[in-house]
Amino acid sequence: MTKPLRVALLGCGTVGSQVLRLIAEQADDLTARIGRPVEVAGVAVRRPDHHPDVPAHLLTTDAQALVTREDVDLVVEVIGGIEPARTLLLAAIGAGKSVVSANKALLADDGVALHAAAAEAGVDLYYEAAVAGAIPLLRPLRESLAGDQIRRVVGIVNGTTNYILSRMAETGAGFAEALAEATDLGYAEADPTADVDGFDAAAKAAILASLAFHTPVTAADVHREGISSITATDVARAAEIGCTVKLLAICERVGNGTTDTVAVRVHPAMIPTTHPLAAVGGAFNAVFVEAEAAGQLMFYGQGAGGEPTASAVLGDLVAVARNRLAGASGQGPTGYAKLAVRPIAETPTRYHVSLDVADKPGVLATVAQEFARHEVSISTVRQDGHGDAATLVIVTHSAPDAALSATIAALRDMAAVRAVTSVLRVEGLS
Amino acid sequence: MTKPLRVALLGCGTVGSQVLRLIAEQADDLTARIGRPVEVAGVAVRRPDHHPDVPAHLLTTDAQALVTREDVDLVVEVIGGIEPARTLLLAAIGAGKSVVSANKALLADDGVALHAAAAEAGVDLYYEAAVAGAIPLLRPLRESLAGDQIRRVVGIVNGTTNYILSRMAETGAGFAEALAEATDLGYAEADPTADVDGFDAAAKAAILASLAFHTPVTAADVHREGISSITATDVARAAEIGCTVKLLAICERVGNGTTDTVAVRVHPAMIPTTHPLAAVGGAFNAVFVEAEAAGQLMFYGQGAGGEPTASAVLGDLVAVARNRLAGASGQGPTGYAKLAVRPIAETPTRYHVSLDVADKPGVLATVAQEFARHEVSISTVRQDGHGDAATLVIVTHSAPDAALSATIAALRDMAAVRAVTSVLRVEGLS
Repeated sequence: MTKPLRVALLGCGTVGSQVLRLIAEQADDLTARIGRPVEVAGVAVRRPDHHPDVPAHLLTTDAQALVTREDVDLVVEVIGGIEPARTLLLAAIGAGKSVVSANKALLADDGVALHAAAAEAGVDLYYEAAVAGAIPLLRPLRESLAGDQIRRVVGIVNGTTNYILSRMAETGAGFAEALAEATDLGYAEADPTADVDGFDAAAKAAILASLAFHTPVTAADVHREGISSITATDVARAAEIGCTVKLLAICERVGNGTTDTVAVRVHPAMIPTTHPLAAVGGAFNAVFVEAEAAGQLMFYGQGAGGEPTASAVLGDLVAVARNRLAGASGQGPTGYAKLAVRPIAETPTRYHVSLDVADKPGVLATVAQEFARHEVSISTVRQDGHGDAATLVIVTHSAPDAALSATIAALRDMAAVRAVTSVLRVEGLS
Repeated sequence: MTKPLRVALLGCGTVGSQVLRLIAEQADDLTARIGRPVEVAGVAVRRPDHHPDVPAHLLTTDAQALVTREDVDLVVEVIGGIEPARTLLLAAIGAGKSVVSANKALLADDGVALHAAAAEAGVDLYYEAAVAGAIPLLRPLRESLAGDQIRRVVGIVNGTTNYILSRMAETGAGFAEALAEATDLGYAEADPTADVDGFDAAAKAAILASLAFHTPVTAADVHREGISSITATDVARAAEIGCTVKLLAICERVGNGTTDTVAVRVHPAMIPTTHPLAAVGGAFNAVFVEAEAAGQLMFYGQGAGGEPTASAVLGDLVAVARNRLAGASGQGPTGYAKLAVRPIAETPTRYHVSLDVADKPGVLATVAQEFARHEVSISTVRQDGHGDAATLVIVTHSAPDAALSATIAALRDMAAVRAVTSVLRVEGLS
């Protein structure tokens, strides 16, 4: 048997233990596909005594020493978080090891530096597992569509918030109640901030936008709004116009040439129930991609979980192993286009607004004038009277987000407007 | 500027002309992604005077000479059909050129020989465009899931038949009427045999199964039934049980070890309207993949057309160009598992059967006995009386296909059965 390729595993939690299982169970297939057997050289963990299933001689607490060991060819990082993952991956790359990571936060923050280090060292940096778990998404964006121009990527990339919003729609519950249920069932973590405030989705959006547009986009470039302010009223209003509320990650290329910009945002939005993303329920993820020649594509699958994520890690492991044996590095450059990132204020969006107003003549005209003053064009208005009050439900046409939010601020100050009861962006309406 | 990579294009129809357009329009991006510019070395066509848009000095009728020319690095074949494509690709491979093909018929028939020739010559053979147009499917199967075990691939991979079946469901039309409409609208070719008799889908199923199971599967191994015998009654019966009729390509791995077999079949089937594939309308394609660790994945997009297919060709072109410059070949071995192909007779399926019977006591018992005699277990029976006749609608549990078809044959001979009005397999019911 030829000399095995030796893998260092950093982290051995939900994902890492599944990576070890797949390496063992798929050993024959991996050997056939790579051309050499894969062997685990070591597993770095914080508490070796917490891992009775891993052979003791493989466990180490010294991750730094492991990633630079001469007998290690490839490093798989499933620790998560910025440090010590960042230092360890840079050390591994510096020591000439190719790297597979599932670390969305790190890639979204420091992808540029890591890619530069990998290019300089002539090693691979693959991270399919960092976005949408097992769904093959980064490889299609980087490779399958490499001769096409991607215009738009829109996805549901966070299962926790999708579960909460699905339950709110099904039961009429408010956010707090649905979150409590998600926490009880283990769909939300004890501290749900990363999920419900959109940090997790924003990191994934940054990675998707970077690859789709060949432009460095970090999490800080992503306009981010979470779902904690979504009310039962918002969800009910959405249903009234044939929509459902989803937390979307939206990456767009705006313009059509070298002065193109990219706009990247994460926020809840109403989408029509007929939209394919509307049917994506519970903890599943789905991502729509629109490319100039390929047209519309959709990718759907499990966005999280130990096994699906480990599957994505193993796919990358085979690729970097093959590249290593061939003496080549794969996939190629990512950041060469360097398009400017357009702020949310200038990005065209559409709003759905619901107002409680006094039911007297002229209110609609006054409200409509406020939209006109901000150069926001109205698509539809519905007015329902009840006693001396009325509800106005307005859907706008597309306008710069700053104009829309300025309109809302002005409406809140109008004497005729008793309350702004719901404001949400709308996506996917024709 | 560094020395360009030179591409020979074989065929310049709907797809080929879009390939030329993308190579020109995406020139800067291609250069950035590959590391060198891409240049068209020549375009082989039958009638140069039919291609006024292509620079005359590039056109040639001597494809054989073109593919072996020293100044050609890569060959893109979009002629289709077995010959002369087969001879040309083998010549190109023999001359050391990497090859990108969109030719499903050829890959389904001769994939083994072509892969062997490519491996021997140390060149690449990529053909993402051969299955499901622009949908990135072969690369995910070969690469993203390379460390996982794929259990099942189920897809709608032929847009023409999907359009016809969708129209039959929407309008209640029969097959002939819906086909005539598809022909009028250009969705079906003048000779629709390849589509409606399932040859096109069978070729794609063979390619999918080969890659999913690392086992040589040719079109001849695929059990194939088309849609020309589907009646308005079949479609109506499907609707009665909450199903819709789709032409499915189904690739399954049966068993759980080295004695596993693969079963590959193309036939119409009833699927529940709640199944994600049921919503795939018109000329779109979608493919479900179930893998051991990754779970369920779905890929959706345009399955045909010049632009989407050209997008897939360009993605492959970038990959083989990068591999060539790195001195490596990509993707790796495909046929090493060599699992046996299980014939349809032994493959477990489920049937929906609709019978006109005499409405007298004991008929249901007699019919049920016939199923039992063939060891076919019944899942549900519905009996509707009308006058002296009755309709029996039976859905079976899973049984070997041979037992199911033998049961149907026996039913046709029973005195109590006036007519077998509809027989269709059922997929995706729990």
